[in-house]
Amino acid sequence: MTSANGSRAVDRLATAGYALPTVAPGGSPYAEFQVVGGLVHISGQLPLVDGEVPARGQVGADVDRTTAEHLAELAAVQVLGVAAAALGGLDEVRMVQMLVFVASTSDFSEQSFVAGAASRLLLHVLGENGVHARTAIGVAALPRLSPVEIQAVCTRALRETAR
Amino acid sequence: MTSANGSRAVDRLATAGYALPTVAPGGSPYAEFQVVGGLVHISGQLPLVDGEVPARGQVGADVDRTTAEHLAELAAVQVLGVAAAALGGLDEVRMVQMLVFVASTSDFSEQSFVAGAASRLLLHVLGENGVHARTAIGVAALPRLSPVEIQAVCTRALRETAR
Amino acid sequence: MTSANGSRAVDRLATAGYALPTVAPGGSPYAEFQVVGGLVHISGQLPLVDGEVPARGQVGADVDRTTAEHLAELAAVQVLGVAAAALGGLDEVRMVQMLVFVASTSDFSEQSFVAGAASRLLLHVLGENGVHARTAIGVAALPRLSPVEIQAVCTRALRETAR
Repeated sequence: MTSANGSRAVDRLATAGYALPTVAPGGSPYAEFQVVGGLVHISGQLPLVDGEVPARGQVGADVDRTTAEHLAELAAVQVLGVAAAALGGLDEVRMVQMLVFVASTSDFSEQSFVAGAASRLLLHVLGENGVHARTAIGVAALPRLSPVEIQAVCTRALRETAR
Repeated sequence: MTSANGSRAVDRLATAGYALPTVAPGGSPYAEFQVVGGLVHISGQLPLVDGEVPARGQVGADVDRTTAEHLAELAAVQVLGVAAAALGGLDEVRMVQMLVFVASTSDFSEQSFVAGAASRLLLHVLGENGVHARTAIGVAALPRLSPVEIQAVCTRALRETAR
Repeated sequence: MTSANGSRAVDRLATAGYALPTVAPGGSPYAEFQVVGGLVHISGQLPLVDGEVPARGQVGADVDRTTAEHLAELAAVQVLGVAAAALGGLDEVRMVQMLVFVASTSDFSEQSFVAGAASRLLLHVLGENGVHARTAIGVAALPRLSPVEIQAVCTRALRETAR
């Protein structure tokens, strides 16, 4: 069972309620990804709805954990869009590492839960190829006052598990 | 001269007062490490004593520098545990890069000293294979209000210097 | 047209007003770079003038955006110095990834603009080899109260585009 474009991963992304975004590689003054030695380095991705960050400020003050978890999913969807652009399709993506930044008050302690929403989406969409190392930290502020940002590293999926 | 398990690195860790923790690889929703193209990406590690973070809050307010240095050592011990699990033993580990997060007040300037305690422990335990690139930054807050967290990259040790 | 040392990249750095710093590799307790599997991992670099960080504090409070952009250029110059030391000359450097830390108040939203100054310098100096993936975040504080710090990954330049 595959979607019109033949991608099981895109189908699974749809069951989670998300469409795969189309991402231009960029390049000036920076690129959305760089491929070297089999590793794809993905630039920090913000949560976007129609090109806008849909909430602003620090988690623990301006944004609650449930909202932050949804924003983490949205940022992960952007990561998947970049990864698919870099590797020629979402079924070709194997995640390696994810660094999750959560704009946090000094007493907010649940960055791992926010990052967990992104991690679970990757597992849901990519299966075994979604398993990744992960770091979650709380930062002072992020570009455009986004509450969440995700940087990632991925590689080409193993054939046996990708299809 | 080697320990009962034949590891000189584990012996050197013991002389610093630490035992090598046993780490399960995990995998859902994220893994403690991912190996790709010879590089081992290690997830962010907190300082742990009996599974608990032994101090909480920001360095410069709730925690002093000396305590933070000890916490950095504890987080480095967890990194070594994950690295040993990934590579089949501590003698097989060569460090590559370490990113040290220190929960900091806006006027705390000594993140490099905190990270230095972790760096020195790696050199003590791994010798030439402990040499690593490093970044130290001060963040707003970390998971479980830990004052310190360390993310790392390692690879397989060079035979000549590992034994 | 090349400089006395025959490097076009060093010439382009000079047209931007900067000299290539000489960087010692270090190694104790950490190294300025580590090379593994074709990737050069560069330690976090601060903006330096005569070895000193020329401004201190958070962007949005103690330092304005224009100053922060200049500091980002200075930190990028240090990155280039380390990269040139690692690869045997600035013409050999191809950037891969850059992680830009900006000490920020909780309401400062322009980390991407600060990082953009560093990105544009890399493109100016290295041309196609300066294209890189990038993440910009706002942190609580940095070593020596520097407003900016940059960690990077680079690799050896492609011959066709380097010369």
